[in-house]
Amino acid sequence: MALKDLLLTPGPSQVPDRVKLELAKPAWYHRSARFRTLYKECRERFQRIFETQGDPLIFAGSGTLAMEAAIVNCVAPGKKAVVVSAGKWGERLVQICDAFGIEKVVVKLEYGKSPTPQQVADAAKDPAVAAVYIHLSETSTGAKYDVKGIGEAVRKANPNALLGVDGISGAIGMECPLDAWGVDLFMCGSQKGMMMPPGLAVLSVSAKAWKVIESVKSHSYYACLKACKKNLAANDTPYTPANTLMDALNVALQMIEEEGPRNVLARHALLAKATRAGVAALGLELFPEHPNEVLTVISTQAGVDSGNVIKTARDRFGVTFANGQGDMKGKMVRFAHMGYVSATDILAGMAVLELSLKANGVNVKLGAGVAAAQDVIAQADKSVTL
Amino acid sequence: MALKDLLLTPGPSQVPDRVKLELAKPAWYHRSARFRTLYKECRERFQRIFETQGDPLIFAGSGTLAMEAAIVNCVAPGKKAVVVSAGKWGERLVQICDAFGIEKVVVKLEYGKSPTPQQVADAAKDPAVAAVYIHLSETSTGAKYDVKGIGEAVRKANPNALLGVDGISGAIGMECPLDAWGVDLFMCGSQKGMMMPPGLAVLSVSAKAWKVIESVKSHSYYACLKACKKNLAANDTPYTPANTLMDALNVALQMIEEEGPRNVLARHALLAKATRAGVAALGLELFPEHPNEVLTVISTQAGVDSGNVIKTARDRFGVTFANGQGDMKGKMVRFAHMGYVSATDILAGMAVLELSLKANGVNVKLGAGVAAAQDVIAQADKSVTL
Repeated sequence: MALKDLLLTPGPSQVPDRVKLELAKPAWYHRSARFRTLYKECRERFQRIFETQGDPLIFAGSGTLAMEAAIVNCVAPGKKAVVVSAGKWGERLVQICDAFGIEKVVVKLEYGKSPTPQQVADAAKDPAVAAVYIHLSETSTGAKYDVKGIGEAVRKANPNALLGVDGISGAIGMECPLDAWGVDLFMCGSQKGMMMPPGLAVLSVSAKAWKVIESVKSHSYYACLKACKKNLAANDTPYTPANTLMDALNVALQMIEEEGPRNVLARHALLAKATRAGVAALGLELFPEHPNEVLTVISTQAGVDSGNVIKTARDRFGVTFANGQGDMKGKMVRFAHMGYVSATDILAGMAVLELSLKANGVNVKLGAGVAAAQDVIAQADKSVTL
Repeated sequence: MALKDLLLTPGPSQVPDRVKLELAKPAWYHRSARFRTLYKECRERFQRIFETQGDPLIFAGSGTLAMEAAIVNCVAPGKKAVVVSAGKWGERLVQICDAFGIEKVVVKLEYGKSPTPQQVADAAKDPAVAAVYIHLSETSTGAKYDVKGIGEAVRKANPNALLGVDGISGAIGMECPLDAWGVDLFMCGSQKGMMMPPGLAVLSVSAKAWKVIESVKSHSYYACLKACKKNLAANDTPYTPANTLMDALNVALQMIEEEGPRNVLARHALLAKATRAGVAALGLELFPEHPNEVLTVISTQAGVDSGNVIKTARDRFGVTFANGQGDMKGKMVRFAHMGYVSATDILAGMAVLELSLKANGVNVKLGAGVAAAQDVIAQADKSVTL
């Protein structure tokens, strides 16, 4: 038998059969009532799932496009962006500012740390600051940021500043009710909590953000939000949308609504808790100070190259974990539990992690991590889907 | 029975079953040897199909992203772009220049016209002109541009200028050997001749263009070609690629190579000729002065709203043609024969066009267009695939 694959990377994540089969359907013409109905339906689903009255926009592209759009359209010349950088994705936000000559104030923290609301608010209090960019989940470290607390502190320090949140890996799997938490720009990609392959970028824009966008003369075309706004009234897009991908997205979002977005959050929280219990039982350390609900980032001990552990898992068992990025390569195993992930997936993943650690000379007791994860699951409220 | 769909729009175009089934396969991790092999394989296929030693780059996005990348990365401040505008897509090139504050010289022609090489060369002779942007096919009018002749004339007038060609609807179905014709920037989208759904943008970059790109400080990030170049040595992409779409693209390109790119061209030329013979036999006029091989744009007579003809074809027969865009709406039927299109498709399309014209009060002889198209096909060289 060929190896049976189990994908546990923090994006791309697994795609349900219902969604994959939708992708196999015929092409159709996108300048049509069928498209406008589809776009409206997807956007309304996002409004319910993200708990927002704002406008979720869908682009052909990957998450970085949503990041670029959220920055270039919202920070006028002479204004500043505050960016929290404590990992690879914070660095990407900084690079986008630099590429467009946007002045920035960087709250730089060590990899694995999360900012305090006060740290961000202090940087945002300069009235020239037009927007603050943070993550819900910093995918490179597994850190969770306190979006709610940061939003409150920033609004107190600078009521005009927009709050931009990179939800690329966190969205859907981590709590982030956009309107209640005052998120003005929510950036997402399709290949994580949305249970889709890569190819779509999503950016949800608040009424407060639209006012700013209308006043900013930005150098953008493919990422131009003013162009999106102009077409939105007719439920249309300025450029060719990836309409067949959007059909599949609609099915994925329907599945999320069938499960219930709050139940999806509970499932992620439980799987995260079970995974961490397993890690602790194996005597391993978590990398981030404040771990999030969509991926568990495990530090490997000195002298153990995490790349070897990951290779064993993949080559011998068909299980794919992700390595660290940049300087973190070889030092961590990123074990994701985001999107279309079940208890069986994380139990199998934990068992394979144990076997792969042992095969690479790490002294772990086989079954100890699995048992600890099982305990958490056994004690879970029966209402949580597994 | 539900209506059986026949998609004859100038993008999206039909997707073969082999490609659709590829899209239904599981997600997989993109930072992997598997991805690097795939990206290399797709790029090598493009090099053979496009007849180039240049670098075909693949982006998550639609064709407009390739246009933006071809412009913003190649025209430095103080330099100028020459843009031919004789339809909606020429206007898009102009808009992209404007969005990024790029100075432009517009060769503006009436809709449906094609520029002469001399017209373009005259505009390009200013030494401040860094690049010239034209179309292979202007999709909004069905016009064919003389890429070879324009390239020669431009190089004579301004040897340093780059030649950028929008091949979004023309690529693969129309002859355009990039290196022989001196095309430096070839912009494509997946949903036309590539037999794929929308979601991928392709830009092929020549060695001459790379030299310019390296010297230009552009405001771009998602569309940044320098970032692509940096990752290309490792067969990788700077941002999350749409890897499952690229798997399907690889299969589509394999099918094109199996048929033979020159045979694909011959099939398109024959189907275009047959469609035009049918149009002439019905006493209808072509809209463009120089029609191309990927779509036939038919002017409807005064008093006949082409939208009604298109609606009948779609609602009664399941055949989708495209209407005109902008001012051209209601005045034309765009009958595409691009990508995964066969003789049976265009014969059925012609028969339905006749029925739909007649149902909307146009006096056509049923069967006359089909018979004329059949004649062309019957006389075709037997080596041409149908």
